[in-house]
Amino acid sequence: MKAARFYGRRDVRVTDIPKPKPKPDQALVAIEWCGICGSDLHEYLQAGPLAIPRTKPHPITGDTMPVTLGHEFCGRIVSAPSNSHLTPGQAVMVDPRIYCKLCSRCSTTSTNACYNWGFLGLSGAGGGLSETVAVDPAMCYPLPESVPLELAALIEPLAVAWHAANLIEIDDFGGRFVLILGGGPVGIALVFVLKARGAKKIFVSEPTARRAEQNAQLVDAVFNPMKEDVGEECRKLTAGEGVDIVFDCAGIQQGLQDGMNALRHKGTYVNIAAWEKPMTIPMRELMLREITMKASMAYNDTDFKETVDAFVQGKFRGVEKMVTSRIHLDDVATKGFEELITNKDNHIKILVTPKQDRLAGAS
Amino acid sequence: MKAARFYGRRDVRVTDIPKPKPKPDQALVAIEWCGICGSDLHEYLQAGPLAIPRTKPHPITGDTMPVTLGHEFCGRIVSAPSNSHLTPGQAVMVDPRIYCKLCSRCSTTSTNACYNWGFLGLSGAGGGLSETVAVDPAMCYPLPESVPLELAALIEPLAVAWHAANLIEIDDFGGRFVLILGGGPVGIALVFVLKARGAKKIFVSEPTARRAEQNAQLVDAVFNPMKEDVGEECRKLTAGEGVDIVFDCAGIQQGLQDGMNALRHKGTYVNIAAWEKPMTIPMRELMLREITMKASMAYNDTDFKETVDAFVQGKFRGVEKMVTSRIHLDDVATKGFEELITNKDNHIKILVTPKQDRLAGAS
Repeated sequence: MKAARFYGRRDVRVTDIPKPKPKPDQALVAIEWCGICGSDLHEYLQAGPLAIPRTKPHPITGDTMPVTLGHEFCGRIVSAPSNSHLTPGQAVMVDPRIYCKLCSRCSTTSTNACYNWGFLGLSGAGGGLSETVAVDPAMCYPLPESVPLELAALIEPLAVAWHAANLIEIDDFGGRFVLILGGGPVGIALVFVLKARGAKKIFVSEPTARRAEQNAQLVDAVFNPMKEDVGEECRKLTAGEGVDIVFDCAGIQQGLQDGMNALRHKGTYVNIAAWEKPMTIPMRELMLREITMKASMAYNDTDFKETVDAFVQGKFRGVEKMVTSRIHLDDVATKGFEELITNKDNHIKILVTPKQDRLAGAS
Repeated sequence: MKAARFYGRRDVRVTDIPKPKPKPDQALVAIEWCGICGSDLHEYLQAGPLAIPRTKPHPITGDTMPVTLGHEFCGRIVSAPSNSHLTPGQAVMVDPRIYCKLCSRCSTTSTNACYNWGFLGLSGAGGGLSETVAVDPAMCYPLPESVPLELAALIEPLAVAWHAANLIEIDDFGGRFVLILGGGPVGIALVFVLKARGAKKIFVSEPTARRAEQNAQLVDAVFNPMKEDVGEECRKLTAGEGVDIVFDCAGIQQGLQDGMNALRHKGTYVNIAAWEKPMTIPMRELMLREITMKASMAYNDTDFKETVDAFVQGKFRGVEKMVTSRIHLDDVATKGFEELITNKDNHIKILVTPKQDRLAGAS
């Protein structure tokens, strides 16, 4: 079968590899759509925190480079263990996380902190930028036929945002002022999640014109941090107090300072971004405002399930706006990865399919 | 009356100033004991965040330098408004904070974040390193005669620690592993607070031999961060998982890194220290462990009241060990401030009295 394999910096090749043979306890999923993630791009450019095992085999998969890419994928069941909840033909969204189920973190705290964590599509054992993947049935979430499968792959980035929102321990964001730093794919996924969870006042700080335009259609105010004092602008819109929550989807120092400056006393700063450098905290804001900082890393079982449920319930209204291009797997290097470099700001999410006929139907 | 006045860097003079005349709504307190705080020392050395108004008058007191020092003080009521809860001769601990009671933070969030906050002893309007102070009766907490007044001034630094502990929203620290960075006066106050609140496993990271010795009598383990891997040592004592909470009372970069390294997944890092430089966060620990950071700033009405109550109830067992010297107000410059510089590590808290006879009785 065809699979997009990662060989190193700016080297992704669609090659022919053996179709995976599911073990007796595995389901085989035929991929419908797979998104390209910012972390895929980090790997591709070798910038930021990296996850693909370059030389040392991943402790669970045993694989090293080249690995098949793609961890944001949905598909249909080809085969499944007879005692599973899955049936052939069924549409599913796959939680792509790999965890050991054995370590103390898996068993007592959270699977998203497994000491041996990995992802299908980054850590070996197959990925969504291919034709089929063998997966743990427990990681497959059946989707009713009413759910548009050509959008379901968005559940994965939405789950990342959902987890970040869950760190603020409230169900309804209706009464909270929120500032999002960075209006890229993660920031926009967060907008949809927060709106699904009742947010009424969302501001975005975003320097590029194209992204500002994309965000302006979705949120209450977009600030240009190169031209405006984001803290001041936020205070103007919050009776002088500042925002309740900042979500950092940018991961750069100026954003952090703007965010701390924009927060109200006892506000919360949540980092989702993959910083390439350490963050330097302005002590004055942190202390005088008694700011709480939280760090959001991927998602856990509950987050993923809640996101699937919200998706099935149609809570992410307008989420189709996140898809800015649909391409065939054959073109993933040029129209996928390279396109995301050369035309970065024009894209939110590029979805990839191995099935030629899906492109005609969906675009 | 005599008062220790701050004139600038390393310039504290005991001078004769007019005795304060209380306004009709104020109580007059005759000082018994007043502690010298780390923030007083910051001012004295002009290091770290400064609070004394050098040139611009404080918005509430209207005062600028020279100001009378001392914000950790207890005493006895000389006079009080007839409609107050205070009676002459009564022993009281004074909450030295100054806040406007008018701003949005005072009225809706917390008085410790007042936009115009200050402290008696730093911001003008008198201080505890003198003979008498005129104060708001609402800030006076009566103490029963069973309470040793020669220790009551410790309530103020204990309240600082109490507030930090309150940021961890639990009543009982019995089941938590705690690491304290820095075994100085704030760290030791925190030890007493945590023990009063049920803590059973407290570790301290402290580089100096003298302070390590002081702490070793109080806690379960003391690590030398210059010689030991604090994270590893903590993991050895926590079944490999790391501590639940780190309190930073050191305010230096190595401590921060040790603390982040020592924390378990989903652990909480609380900063109390007055950093002289910005803090640089190690992203890997922050993100992979999803650490929560909190910042602790002074204390609010509830914290102070709870600390007084705990003190009256005798919950700070052994707290007399915090007092390493008692001196007369006349000697505050040499045996107080300069002593805290030249023999820093030998001291936890120096208490100062304007009453000569108290020294014979207490030492």
